[in-house]
Amino acid sequence: MLVIGERINGMFKNVRNAIAEHDKSVIVDLAKRQLEAGAHVLDINVGPASDDPVGAMLWLVDTVQEAVDAPLSIDSAKMEVFEPALARCKQPPFINSTTGAQEQLNFFLPLAMKYNASLIALTIDEQGVPSTTEGRTEIAMRILVAAMEHGLPTDRLYIDPITLPVKAVQDQCAKQLEALRQFRQLADPPPHTVIGLSNVSQRAQEKRLIDRTFLVMCIANGLDSAILDPLDKDLMDAMITAELLLNKQLYCDSYLEAYHR
Amino acid sequence: MLVIGERINGMFKNVRNAIAEHDKSVIVDLAKRQLEAGAHVLDINVGPASDDPVGAMLWLVDTVQEAVDAPLSIDSAKMEVFEPALARCKQPPFINSTTGAQEQLNFFLPLAMKYNASLIALTIDEQGVPSTTEGRTEIAMRILVAAMEHGLPTDRLYIDPITLPVKAVQDQCAKQLEALRQFRQLADPPPHTVIGLSNVSQRAQEKRLIDRTFLVMCIANGLDSAILDPLDKDLMDAMITAELLLNKQLYCDSYLEAYHR
Repeated sequence: MLVIGERINGMFKNVRNAIAEHDKSVIVDLAKRQLEAGAHVLDINVGPASDDPVGAMLWLVDTVQEAVDAPLSIDSAKMEVFEPALARCKQPPFINSTTGAQEQLNFFLPLAMKYNASLIALTIDEQGVPSTTEGRTEIAMRILVAAMEHGLPTDRLYIDPITLPVKAVQDQCAKQLEALRQFRQLADPPPHTVIGLSNVSQRAQEKRLIDRTFLVMCIANGLDSAILDPLDKDLMDAMITAELLLNKQLYCDSYLEAYHR
Repeated sequence: MLVIGERINGMFKNVRNAIAEHDKSVIVDLAKRQLEAGAHVLDINVGPASDDPVGAMLWLVDTVQEAVDAPLSIDSAKMEVFEPALARCKQPPFINSTTGAQEQLNFFLPLAMKYNASLIALTIDEQGVPSTTEGRTEIAMRILVAAMEHGLPTDRLYIDPITLPVKAVQDQCAKQLEALRQFRQLADPPPHTVIGLSNVSQRAQEKRLIDRTFLVMCIANGLDSAILDPLDKDLMDAMITAELLLNKQLYCDSYLEAYHR
């Protein structure tokens, strides 16, 4: 399971303030703690509020890379942020994210090829988020075909079936689980699958319980990567245990500690 | 999700002592607390140590039925226990359990018909526990056909893919999950599926974490019944949340409390 740590995001107040005040210590601390807790990749997002999204992203990328040695996931809603940030990454980065809309694929796939990046692709298209499993799988297939046409290896493609809040659209979680299962049958080797976990519990009261339960359900359906909060120890323990039960980590009585070694 | 409470079992020391001393209070307390915690059926097992398994079972059945009004699951390794106990049940009971061996099916299916019982059937046969998904599904199919021949409605059949300890045979959990999914495709309406949850964590250190993680994975694969400890609140909360995410209970912020109303 590839863990992409979500905590360096301007949506969180401490990160937003750190960006505004160029306070490196907050960012470095979050980078180090997430990696110690089991993150493999660090997501970097300046948040919606920034006046200078490119400048803020580059400051974050540099700050993190001065302190730790880990792949970054460049995460932005603004297309102009990506190329300068990707060019600054020392390790092969992640692009977070394209949709399945043709215009977006035409922009992001060449960028992924140029910067040796992995690409997170959401099963959304010009018509929005499909409400069915089949709609998600159709877009996933289109993304996969486009990736092949641009020469992006399936191993660098992470397809996201779109996690929606259980509080708002309760029937969608089951469809997403089934979509994860279908995506893995689209190609051999299959593309990776990824979710933005915390969306499922948006505005819900039992956020952490819902997050870790849904993560385990997704892993049981083949999920092999997630954007999540690695500082939530109960969440990480549930994830590690689900992988143990799928025989992806060798059993020992101290398997939780062994995971972090 | 049908919850079969596992706590009235002579394998537990307090129950074993209560049987030996005919101390009803321990049994009544376990019956009431399990039902309050969300159990729908109470499993009754005198344990391996009893000198008089029939007498002990009838005492347990009577003790529970004097105090609460719930279906019982008659659970024994000794065949002579079943008929007298089933005859004493006030509500349609469960038989726990037959295997897929022909001799056992010939014994238990007529009994289930005679006493209007539901039947828990383990996918074991004369050759033992199959090590593959397909082996389990083959036995499940044989059980299903035998049930149909005896006139037992699919709705009263609970097929158990055999839960083995992750500590001992780590590759079997994934096969069991896949078997759960296959069982549901054997007939329409499908048979119920059931597991004896605590087997998965036998002799493991993180028993409760392993139990609740595996339960959620099984639910994500279609499990609709389990024999478990309803007094483990974290386990019940995980189960309720998994069902919520499959849209089987309506979302409200207090969905955990709402489940018990």
